[in-house]
Amino acid sequence: MKTRAAVAYEAGKPLVVEDVELDGPKAGEVLVEIKATGVCHTDEFTRSGADPEGLFPVIFGHEGAGVVVDIGPGVTSVAKGDHVILLYTPECRSCKSCLSRKTNLCTAIRATQGRGLMPDGTSRFSIGKTKIHHYMGCSTFAHHTVLPEIAVAKIRKDAPFDKVCYIGCGVTTGIGAVIYTAKVEPGANVVVFGLGGIGLNVVQGARMAGADKIIGIDLNPEREALARKLGLTHFVDPKRVSGDLVAHLVELTGGGADYSFECVGNVTLMRQALECCHRGWGVSVIIGVAGAGQEIGTRPFQLVTGRVWKGSAFGGARGRTDVPKIVDWYMDGKIDIDSLITHKLPLERINESFDLMHEGKSIRTVIEFT
Amino acid sequence: MKTRAAVAYEAGKPLVVEDVELDGPKAGEVLVEIKATGVCHTDEFTRSGADPEGLFPVIFGHEGAGVVVDIGPGVTSVAKGDHVILLYTPECRSCKSCLSRKTNLCTAIRATQGRGLMPDGTSRFSIGKTKIHHYMGCSTFAHHTVLPEIAVAKIRKDAPFDKVCYIGCGVTTGIGAVIYTAKVEPGANVVVFGLGGIGLNVVQGARMAGADKIIGIDLNPEREALARKLGLTHFVDPKRVSGDLVAHLVELTGGGADYSFECVGNVTLMRQALECCHRGWGVSVIIGVAGAGQEIGTRPFQLVTGRVWKGSAFGGARGRTDVPKIVDWYMDGKIDIDSLITHKLPLERINESFDLMHEGKSIRTVIEFT
Repeated sequence: MKTRAAVAYEAGKPLVVEDVELDGPKAGEVLVEIKATGVCHTDEFTRSGADPEGLFPVIFGHEGAGVVVDIGPGVTSVAKGDHVILLYTPECRSCKSCLSRKTNLCTAIRATQGRGLMPDGTSRFSIGKTKIHHYMGCSTFAHHTVLPEIAVAKIRKDAPFDKVCYIGCGVTTGIGAVIYTAKVEPGANVVVFGLGGIGLNVVQGARMAGADKIIGIDLNPEREALARKLGLTHFVDPKRVSGDLVAHLVELTGGGADYSFECVGNVTLMRQALECCHRGWGVSVIIGVAGAGQEIGTRPFQLVTGRVWKGSAFGGARGRTDVPKIVDWYMDGKIDIDSLITHKLPLERINESFDLMHEGKSIRTVIEFT
Repeated sequence: MKTRAAVAYEAGKPLVVEDVELDGPKAGEVLVEIKATGVCHTDEFTRSGADPEGLFPVIFGHEGAGVVVDIGPGVTSVAKGDHVILLYTPECRSCKSCLSRKTNLCTAIRATQGRGLMPDGTSRFSIGKTKIHHYMGCSTFAHHTVLPEIAVAKIRKDAPFDKVCYIGCGVTTGIGAVIYTAKVEPGANVVVFGLGGIGLNVVQGARMAGADKIIGIDLNPEREALARKLGLTHFVDPKRVSGDLVAHLVELTGGGADYSFECVGNVTLMRQALECCHRGWGVSVIIGVAGAGQEIGTRPFQLVTGRVWKGSAFGGARGRTDVPKIVDWYMDGKIDIDSLITHKLPLERINESFDLMHEGKSIRTVIEFT
């Protein structure tokens, strides 16, 4: 079939919206009509050329929601007409990782996904004789895409696509890091580095978990108002801190953070996030993706005296199990997504979303397919 | 009173065994007659001059057991005649740390202990007008010493001092890191870097916890036999591994360690210990003390993909609560201490213990007071 998609031919260049050829679902796969997709920093990380593992040509996008319009042989967990959120972290429920009860990082289709291919080792997108890569197993910047059934989460039909698509990455990554990875408890003090599309969700996750102080750090003072609406109690503009930021945060938290979250991808901030944690028990969670080859460092004494350094991918959430719950939380008014979706564009104008991102004007731009 | 002690006047010099003046216990303090003490690498770390926070003159030793022979006003938790193990990590049960339920790192007397003094800010040891520092709040290289009551663990009277003194540091540090810090579960695969006085106790802790594979790494092949006796299942001599050690360990564990422990204090090994952990859930625990100013580093991707980096001090054990239990485990035959005490010396010959340590001949030398 033909479908309309935004194709990236080369790193650093604008996407080209055009018709592409899409092969239908094979065994265990589903065809999804995308209704809405967010544009995430990770898409831009690869588009810009900063991602050393970036493959081209490719159709980006990994934060999408839509409707199952066809299924391949043997598909049992979803049916035509089901509403779904696409999962760049699948959940097969039978690999060593899924069965470990200790991680959400399903490895069932990891190898082929990393090569921009479907599990059978082929690409389903093409233009003429040119094969086009899949991206993060999703490729949501297209009217239609194909995925394995283990990579879609069935959700309730009354949830609006143009909001819950954001649960496909940013919302779950932020809220999940608080709830599933760090397991923040009521009364805890939380420090959040970076109040963008992930950090703001960390803030509302911390509020949901009953945190006391929720301290956010951002260079952009315009983020304060929105962050406070989501639960922030203290805003820190590092430019306005005289002296050492870590010492300031330790003082503000009365001895150190119980939990800290790095939501930027800056290795210097990752170290500060660890070192502002409380001696004895503070847990620091890395969410942001650092540039190629960059390393984190600290004195081992920081760990020996009780701080814990960990990371979180997709918020530690199991896609098919936890994503539908987070959709319920949105529908029940427990979390706010509407305030975070600052811009909407049609697919034809998708390149504008990268400009908005760079100008710091958007929290999340959603592409709506009509 | 006068008591005989091994005094260190200067970094890098032999200890001098002589009579020193000891003031008796003040309010909340106890006078302990030391019956036996281990000599630990940490004593040697400071004696050698490598410890940037080392204070001189000082009486070293922090792995001792003895008998309470006098108590100061207000002491209620121990009485004259009680057998005790001395605690360089006290347990006051009322500071923020003790009340957190999240750490064993009691902070009640931390500031003065770090300055080589008793909680009232004075030293109790002297020779003439020269004040002599306490060491790690213990100073067990002396026939008598004074400590706050929160820094002694009351133990059963049938436990032999010349064995259970080792529970004052090495045994608890190793076994505790497995049981209290890492919480190793039955069936886990464990990798231990360094099979010395700490690492061998990690091995027996892992065996107690029901680990499947217990893999030990040491440059000294003579450590293999003793380690196997304590529960080791695989010995790795890194000199005999062709290719990358981390890749070898990942293969040996069938994908990576569930838990790894660094028991040497080498920042390169700390990185290897983290990176040989299983993607998704592997936990690496730093126990060894690195040299001054040294730093650990890794790519943040190691953490974002689910590995956890933490540390352990005194095995995460609460001194007064957990140490008596570990004494019971020894008395019940659940753990082996006798095999690890390779040498015994009188106090007069204490300097020989440092030579044995450097020659790699001893696991633990115990000084017996008679």
